[in-house]
Amino acid sequence: MTDFTATRAMFDLPEGVIYLDGNSLGPLPRAVPARVARTMTDEWGKMVITGWNRAGWMDLPARVGDRVGRLIGATAGSVIMGDTLSIKVYQALASALEMRPDRRVILSDTGNFPTDLYMADGLCRTLGPGYRLKTVAPEAVEDVIDDSIAVVMVTEVDYRTGRKHDMARLIARAHEHGALVVWDLAHSAGAIPVDVTTADTDFAVGCSYKYLNSGPGGPAFIYVAPRLADKVRPALSGWLGHEAPFAFDLDYRPGPGIERMRVGTPPILQLAALDAALDVWDGVDMHDLRRRSLELQQIFIDRVTAGCSELTLASPVNGAARGSQVSFRHQEGYAIIQALIAEGVIGDFRAPDILRFGFTPLYLTPDDVAKAADSLCAIMQNRRWDRAEFKTRSKVT
Amino acid sequence: MTDFTATRAMFDLPEGVIYLDGNSLGPLPRAVPARVARTMTDEWGKMVITGWNRAGWMDLPARVGDRVGRLIGATAGSVIMGDTLSIKVYQALASALEMRPDRRVILSDTGNFPTDLYMADGLCRTLGPGYRLKTVAPEAVEDVIDDSIAVVMVTEVDYRTGRKHDMARLIARAHEHGALVVWDLAHSAGAIPVDVTTADTDFAVGCSYKYLNSGPGGPAFIYVAPRLADKVRPALSGWLGHEAPFAFDLDYRPGPGIERMRVGTPPILQLAALDAALDVWDGVDMHDLRRRSLELQQIFIDRVTAGCSELTLASPVNGAARGSQVSFRHQEGYAIIQALIAEGVIGDFRAPDILRFGFTPLYLTPDDVAKAADSLCAIMQNRRWDRAEFKTRSKVT
Repeated sequence: MTDFTATRAMFDLPEGVIYLDGNSLGPLPRAVPARVARTMTDEWGKMVITGWNRAGWMDLPARVGDRVGRLIGATAGSVIMGDTLSIKVYQALASALEMRPDRRVILSDTGNFPTDLYMADGLCRTLGPGYRLKTVAPEAVEDVIDDSIAVVMVTEVDYRTGRKHDMARLIARAHEHGALVVWDLAHSAGAIPVDVTTADTDFAVGCSYKYLNSGPGGPAFIYVAPRLADKVRPALSGWLGHEAPFAFDLDYRPGPGIERMRVGTPPILQLAALDAALDVWDGVDMHDLRRRSLELQQIFIDRVTAGCSELTLASPVNGAARGSQVSFRHQEGYAIIQALIAEGVIGDFRAPDILRFGFTPLYLTPDDVAKAADSLCAIMQNRRWDRAEFKTRSKVT
Repeated sequence: MTDFTATRAMFDLPEGVIYLDGNSLGPLPRAVPARVARTMTDEWGKMVITGWNRAGWMDLPARVGDRVGRLIGATAGSVIMGDTLSIKVYQALASALEMRPDRRVILSDTGNFPTDLYMADGLCRTLGPGYRLKTVAPEAVEDVIDDSIAVVMVTEVDYRTGRKHDMARLIARAHEHGALVVWDLAHSAGAIPVDVTTADTDFAVGCSYKYLNSGPGGPAFIYVAPRLADKVRPALSGWLGHEAPFAFDLDYRPGPGIERMRVGTPPILQLAALDAALDVWDGVDMHDLRRRSLELQQIFIDRVTAGCSELTLASPVNGAARGSQVSFRHQEGYAIIQALIAEGVIGDFRAPDILRFGFTPLYLTPDDVAKAADSLCAIMQNRRWDRAEFKTRSKVT
């Protein structure tokens, strides 16, 4: 059994705060500051350029990639870290489209996170006439897959509602029709059990700063199915994805397997932070985590539903159909979240009307969640959100 | 007058080392560890998600971009940080090509850093038939610019030889022929005086981990001429380049000016490191820096030329035609550099036969440089490089 008291002790949680926003940015794992300090002072400071060899910086994207890979069911050597999720989406889509030269349609859904749609759109424009992004309602994705679709690109868990796609079924259906799949795990990796190998996806991408707690702007990851990794032709053909980067050849030759999905020089400080953050996962069983997450969600839903009927559940009622978050709708969602933050409960708002709460068993207890629900209900009952100070929008909502 | 004793004191230089590789990775500025520690503990740790507003993380790419911009003659609001140089090259090229829809040729030279060529090649392949990268010898670039060229992409200072393009002349010539220019400042920013405004380039890109000392994998920068910034259409259309990222619209609308060159979530720890590293530049005049750099280079050239005739100067003899580095050629270059590192003088090797030395007045004195030259000559005279241990290649050369 996973010891969630032990994992909680591994975080430096802000005092007086109940943090229900680990689905946006995970909190600081205690091991991170010392590790990053060591990377700066003992590695960069003392080894300078030789750190690329002596401190193993050059291999860090692959080593850390393997650690992330274990959390998503990937075999060793099939995941690599780097860049941002937007860039990794572009890489995966470009590679997938090139493998289906007779097809020109990317299929996605309106519940996907916008950057995935924007990047797809930008890629289609670069590829030229005929290429297009088709978006349908999340529930309709499976039904519209046909032999015209080159790539199905979906984020498993909807960032607004927490609704979860049945990926195994969707991938099987895409493959039946000869389409490839890019599976965005932004709200899955570290949140729910994922098995990219058994589900047989072609590509998977995700970020590390949410449930993997790597800190603001931590690097993204990309998985390419081993059966494809030596066949994909990188569109973002950067020097560190070259077969022999330090030969400095004038012509690009892709490196072996997943290495070719590297682009430029990797962000070593952020990778060191992520590497330290991943220690938290060493004793965690993803099925224990899932069970606990669903318990926490249920406590929250029951209490909020009972205590403040003004809020409408925006997430599926059935836990199996949700990721690790619960959302409610209210027209004054923005102000309500601000009022809640002012009382030490951090959730977040997603336009136009979503109040969103992430449930992260690594550091949240049933008691935290019950208290958070009670705070929310008290704010609703006393209309404490109804103040000018809570209605002024910040740059980042 | 710039006080180079003061700037040297701002670095935590490795003991017993003369560091002539600041053109690969700058050393650790003393202010960096405390600043990054604060970003982790006081910002990420205490503010968690609210750090995006309260700690100003969201604006950091633009704020730091302005600081870098001052070193390259850019007006405020025309430079933004993020991603890697490879990605920024791709962005600039894609935008430039889209502005010259009737032309399909990118012109570069064989002295350009390979990742620029690889990224250009990948982009051409994505754009489709007709698009191609044409490379000529560095000396021939100016002469082959004609009305068929869409974009001229050159790195000002050759990473192998240190040879410097005359950018003002090259840009003028490109513009005469209706071509756009992407100017790679990897070996220029912080190394030599640069004035993107007066030179009237269209795009400029660069990295921060060389002469700007941001640490391994520090973020890249991109400059877009203000006259173009509201017209370019980003190919890498990520959510943070959107006009209203937190509206989460399904359609992409580019943000105002340089903001549209943002892609995904910025690497806050690496940006904080860079921000602190830039303090070193506050009292530095770039013309003082250039004068001092040329002095240091001349001391090195004179002493090496006099003391070890086996080495052939690979850099231009005329200082005005060089950046801030000096290179020599020798068939056993790799082993010689390893032997030199073993004696505490760090330079680097670039295949097939280049010994490369960077001259960074911020922390190098004439005495350092004379000693380094003497070490090199002693190694050559005693053939101390001729040992098996110095000939085994590391992953990173």
